[in-house]
Amino acid sequence: MTENLAAQQPFVWPSRVYYEDTDTSGVVYHANYLKYFERACTEWLRSLGVGQEVLKREYGTVFALRHLEVDYLRAAHLDDLLDVSVAPVDSKRASFTLDQEARRKGELIARARVKVACLGFPGFAPRVLPAFLKQLLPA
Amino acid sequence: MTENLAAQQPFVWPSRVYYEDTDTSGVVYHANYLKYFERACTEWLRSLGVGQEVLKREYGTVFALRHLEVDYLRAAHLDDLLDVSVAPVDSKRASFTLDQEARRKGELIARARVKVACLGFPGFAPRVLPAFLKQLLPA
Amino acid sequence: MTENLAAQQPFVWPSRVYYEDTDTSGVVYHANYLKYFERACTEWLRSLGVGQEVLKREYGTVFALRHLEVDYLRAAHLDDLLDVSVAPVDSKRASFTLDQEARRKGELIARARVKVACLGFPGFAPRVLPAFLKQLLPA
Amino acid sequence: MTENLAAQQPFVWPSRVYYEDTDTSGVVYHANYLKYFERACTEWLRSLGVGQEVLKREYGTVFALRHLEVDYLRAAHLDDLLDVSVAPVDSKRASFTLDQEARRKGELIARARVKVACLGFPGFAPRVLPAFLKQLLPA
Repeated sequence: MTENLAAQQPFVWPSRVYYEDTDTSGVVYHANYLKYFERACTEWLRSLGVGQEVLKREYGTVFALRHLEVDYLRAAHLDDLLDVSVAPVDSKRASFTLDQEARRKGELIARARVKVACLGFPGFAPRVLPAFLKQLLPA
Repeated sequence: MTENLAAQQPFVWPSRVYYEDTDTSGVVYHANYLKYFERACTEWLRSLGVGQEVLKREYGTVFALRHLEVDYLRAAHLDDLLDVSVAPVDSKRASFTLDQEARRKGELIARARVKVACLGFPGFAPRVLPAFLKQLLPA
Repeated sequence: MTENLAAQQPFVWPSRVYYEDTDTSGVVYHANYLKYFERACTEWLRSLGVGQEVLKREYGTVFALRHLEVDYLRAAHLDDLLDVSVAPVDSKRASFTLDQEARRKGELIARARVKVACLGFPGFAPRVLPAFLKQLLPA
Repeated sequence: MTENLAAQQPFVWPSRVYYEDTDTSGVVYHANYLKYFERACTEWLRSLGVGQEVLKREYGTVFALRHLEVDYLRAAHLDDLLDVSVAPVDSKRASFTLDQEARRKGELIARARVKVACLGFPGFAPRVLPAFLKQLLPA
């Protein structure tokens, strides 16, 4: 029964497939989906008012991936336009979990669950989530 | 005194700097500028009606870099938005040359001159430029 | 009580951390661990007599990632030398599963479990594992 | 008539072509040659006693690419082993120039000329070359 905005509809950020993303099998190289997922995550944070460069420079805070699961369901190809969604699943004191999907014209290509830790920078010690972010996430 | 459209004003395609693009010196890794340059080139071709996937699949034609020069003038950083331009310089029977610039709020960050060859696919033999592209380029 | 060679001791392939692998937080970018894992997997296959280029060209067979889990435990940095292991976990008719670890001087940095499908090329339909590979893997 | 060691025979560092390096045209993606060139450059510096991580952390010095020229002569493919050479061309107070070649079994695939500036870190102001490096380079 959460009322926070971030949980209500998934944020979507498109990424185009360029030559840089493909490999000699003619499909998107598996590691490059992680870049699409992260761009969407970064833009989702930006849409919530959390620019990562500002966060690092002014608040001494960075986010780091702790755990990652990816299902590769279909192949994407050069020139495809992928819509990558971000849906927050839960949040702890110093971490949060997201579900992400990459879709081509609605068709599910790959999905991921990512657990992100909040760390101090440059020390990289665990740090509680910024309050303004915490209140936007499901508990 | 060319009247072709492509030469009249540079095409510009923006690329955001994400974590994937940076390195441990805190700046954009030099090889990654080539990705920005190529995305702009690909979108410029698309704006001229030349989708590269279609070109490869239906016309058996691909473009390949033959020569590249880059000047790295300033450093770009995480979250920067870079405007990358494409200006055709000349064209031969089976190749063309482009000037490209990456700018941040107008400030020149890097510039490149790229010579691109037109090749058959999958044989990779030199091939004359598609007529509809040739007529859009300065001679 | 398996007697196959591949299972008896993990295969290890080292990868050096270069600038290309790092990001502006001063650590290895998370997607780039997948490259280390895949290099080790490719070299492990090569050590079993399965060159992937030959496999694709002569047997019309490629491997594709189906599922991936990664735990990021510690950060790696520029110039680190990472020993990446490959340990086969099981095999099915048309897929196999590997456990992989990236260690720096013995210290565990990241670990992955990857499920790899065997596909025809270029059709990408599921295909039974090559017999000589199947007999080297735990059932 | 230089007698310095570094100039006498080119340093060579091999790089294997993996899936990560290729693109959907079936060849090595052009930007990825810059990674091979940089790995060779880094290992050449290491062979001269200049570890870049140590240089950055203890001496506050980094190297940055200023100008780059690449000729792409032939295509490299998955599983190719490329021998990448480093030959110093000249050195100035705060920069040096290298010639680099990527060869496959002796056959020239790509060559580059790179001009590298020496900078303070984190300020990125020009800095004179470390004396021990300067004396190893042609003037």
